[in-house]
Amino acid sequence: MIDREMQPRDIIRKKRDGAALSPEEIEFFVRGVTNGEFADYQATALLMAVLWRGMNEDEQRILTQAMLRSGETLDFSDVDLPKADKHSTGGVGDKTSLVIAPLAAAAGLCVPMISGRGLGHTGGTLDKLESIPGYRVRLSIAEFREVLQHVGFAMMGQTAEIAPADKKLYALRDATATVEAIPLIVASIMSKKLAAGLDVLVLDVKTGTGAFMREEARAKKLARALVQTGNACGVRTEALITDMNQPLGRAVGNALEVRECIEILRGEAHEGAGPVRELSLELTARMLRLAGVETTLEAGRMHARRVLESGAALESFRRNVEAQGGDARICDDPSRLFTSALREVQVESTRAGFITEIDAAEIGSAIGALGGGRAKVEDEIDPLVGYLAEVKHGDAVKEGDALGILHCRDEGQSAAVARLRAAYTIEDSSPAQSRTLIKDIITV
Amino acid sequence: MIDREMQPRDIIRKKRDGAALSPEEIEFFVRGVTNGEFADYQATALLMAVLWRGMNEDEQRILTQAMLRSGETLDFSDVDLPKADKHSTGGVGDKTSLVIAPLAAAAGLCVPMISGRGLGHTGGTLDKLESIPGYRVRLSIAEFREVLQHVGFAMMGQTAEIAPADKKLYALRDATATVEAIPLIVASIMSKKLAAGLDVLVLDVKTGTGAFMREEARAKKLARALVQTGNACGVRTEALITDMNQPLGRAVGNALEVRECIEILRGEAHEGAGPVRELSLELTARMLRLAGVETTLEAGRMHARRVLESGAALESFRRNVEAQGGDARICDDPSRLFTSALREVQVESTRAGFITEIDAAEIGSAIGALGGGRAKVEDEIDPLVGYLAEVKHGDAVKEGDALGILHCRDEGQSAAVARLRAAYTIEDSSPAQSRTLIKDIITV
Repeated sequence: MIDREMQPRDIIRKKRDGAALSPEEIEFFVRGVTNGEFADYQATALLMAVLWRGMNEDEQRILTQAMLRSGETLDFSDVDLPKADKHSTGGVGDKTSLVIAPLAAAAGLCVPMISGRGLGHTGGTLDKLESIPGYRVRLSIAEFREVLQHVGFAMMGQTAEIAPADKKLYALRDATATVEAIPLIVASIMSKKLAAGLDVLVLDVKTGTGAFMREEARAKKLARALVQTGNACGVRTEALITDMNQPLGRAVGNALEVRECIEILRGEAHEGAGPVRELSLELTARMLRLAGVETTLEAGRMHARRVLESGAALESFRRNVEAQGGDARICDDPSRLFTSALREVQVESTRAGFITEIDAAEIGSAIGALGGGRAKVEDEIDPLVGYLAEVKHGDAVKEGDALGILHCRDEGQSAAVARLRAAYTIEDSSPAQSRTLIKDIITV
Repeated sequence: MIDREMQPRDIIRKKRDGAALSPEEIEFFVRGVTNGEFADYQATALLMAVLWRGMNEDEQRILTQAMLRSGETLDFSDVDLPKADKHSTGGVGDKTSLVIAPLAAAAGLCVPMISGRGLGHTGGTLDKLESIPGYRVRLSIAEFREVLQHVGFAMMGQTAEIAPADKKLYALRDATATVEAIPLIVASIMSKKLAAGLDVLVLDVKTGTGAFMREEARAKKLARALVQTGNACGVRTEALITDMNQPLGRAVGNALEVRECIEILRGEAHEGAGPVRELSLELTARMLRLAGVETTLEAGRMHARRVLESGAALESFRRNVEAQGGDARICDDPSRLFTSALREVQVESTRAGFITEIDAAEIGSAIGALGGGRAKVEDEIDPLVGYLAEVKHGDAVKEGDALGILHCRDEGQSAAVARLRAAYTIEDSSPAQSRTLIKDIITV
């Protein structure tokens, strides 16, 4: 047989039959998806075969690196500090980035944070930041670098130059029910994180009713693959498996979530924001240890707490808001986030009992439907709508007690109230097990 | 949640997760592939999911019927005879259609045979027929009907009007290594056969080194799915599982194969053509019984043999050649098929021993590479090149004995001889088992 050039069909067949792809085949795929040598209809067949057959550690690393190389990388080697970042797989009320980035920067790390927007029931850091009047997340790389050097952390969205193969592949995955393939998730997350030239990465892999990975076993599998790939690519990486069976903290909705973060940074947080504070401190502590700023986790925890309590993290946040064009007065007066007054509607329990289950995704979707999130990427966000949870898993309620407070406009109010109420399961006896926020630690 | 319209992504997800698709979903898919509501890149992801997860009997029948309904159907209900056809999954030297069609027609059946072209190592009936000077396989439906009424059988290629969804899907399957998915094979074969309005269908499912399904277990699985689907769609269907571990009969190559068939019809066949004759008689006998012309298989066999030996099948073939524009003098003098003289080169054994394995696909590909077949659909056929096998599985050979005779032009001769020689495994002791032509009968 005459030697043939590499053919998409043969690569698909190989993965279909469960074999490992060679580095050359994976690189041809990633390059071909971008330049058209690998047709979209061939790419999606391969994506489904990858979802079916998986990828081994080497394949996963090579896929990640090939996607990274499909675009430009940022070089912050001129910044003489450890480069560190945090990534969450997304949840409802998950706002720790807004606490961790200023906290880690104030503790001596350089945090070049490239974030995403919300989709479906989950929120996105960029949308939250944009609820700050004037705040710009669309920075040039030069501007991003300047903010980073000046403040210690900078926040922006992915640019067209970073890992363009990921953008193309994500659109194909989204259209073909192949988003869930772990090797593809890993390559998508890690290629973008690697583009920022990180030394350290901490991952928050959520599991539960409001998480992308509802089952804990799958969340752990994803976390292990992420941590393996990060370390194999030279980034010191750890992951926490955290509970997403209820919104994280009290606030769901963009401006409400920013306010909750400012209150944490100010040391004035509502008791319901406790888990956000706790998880932010823990993730920052792990960053500090991985970066070598502290040698033990306990020292990292003390360091993070000290910086938070000193007000240094708040000052770091204030400088970032100023540098990125936002109204920094929100740091002193978070009510400035609320540029118009919305209706506040109490969502009441229709019976007495204990909260045994909370459908966090349904809460996220109900707020999303009011404009707090997006069903499609092109949807507009209403930053002011949202929800403040008044009860959490295991709490006892009486009939008529507030489950939470909906912040809304006229439209869609009654449907939202009904969905929010239905998101809670209330039973006569208290749940057998209480929810632990941090369920596992994956260090490989 | 608002009820959404049917979405390709949801259908893909359902099959990805191993569930059965509803009739509406399958029909939406087949319609959508043709009209673009189901993008090609979504269709191929679903094809891979079908290859992975399979389809149950109902899904398979509905897919077949949806593909049938994507185009026009032929109506021969004005012909007052049972409509019967035979389909083979393809092999090397597999030429039984050219014997069965005239034989069945001479025995009182109406045989509207819609055939294909060769691709890869396998030949195609249309290519074989086109080696007859003047023979036209591109008939209008009106012409096809006329030949059928006049002769009792007619031969043509698939038209653009018959099962257009199959044409589109086949191209996508071919590009994405999803050709092998059994439900897709079944729907492709059966939708086209159903379009001809058959009462009876006999299937020849090949297994072995020259077959599409090399493994017997997979061939049986395919045969059962075909027979189930045929019967579920109202066509009385049976399948034989037959051996394709060596070329069927002596001749491989278009004109040589037509000559072998004429010799069988004339009762003058070479001993090496025995299996072609045997298999043609058996398949015809089963058609006669399924069609109710005979009530027992034994009576069907006697009937078929009698018609063949009487010369009536040869006369039927002659009338068809005339009706389809071919030079019918080939029926009396098959040497007229050979419009120019080719080189005849003996392929010699380099050692003494027994033929223990024959790579039939390699023989098919070697002749294909000389122009006897196609690597790509657009390749031109050279009808005169070919190969006459002189030995079969289990035969003893001496060093220098002819394994076969290659008919070729100058170009590619030595490469072809080397490939043909290498297709035979010759060992000191005779093979443990002899090859049985008919390995199993699938009637479900």
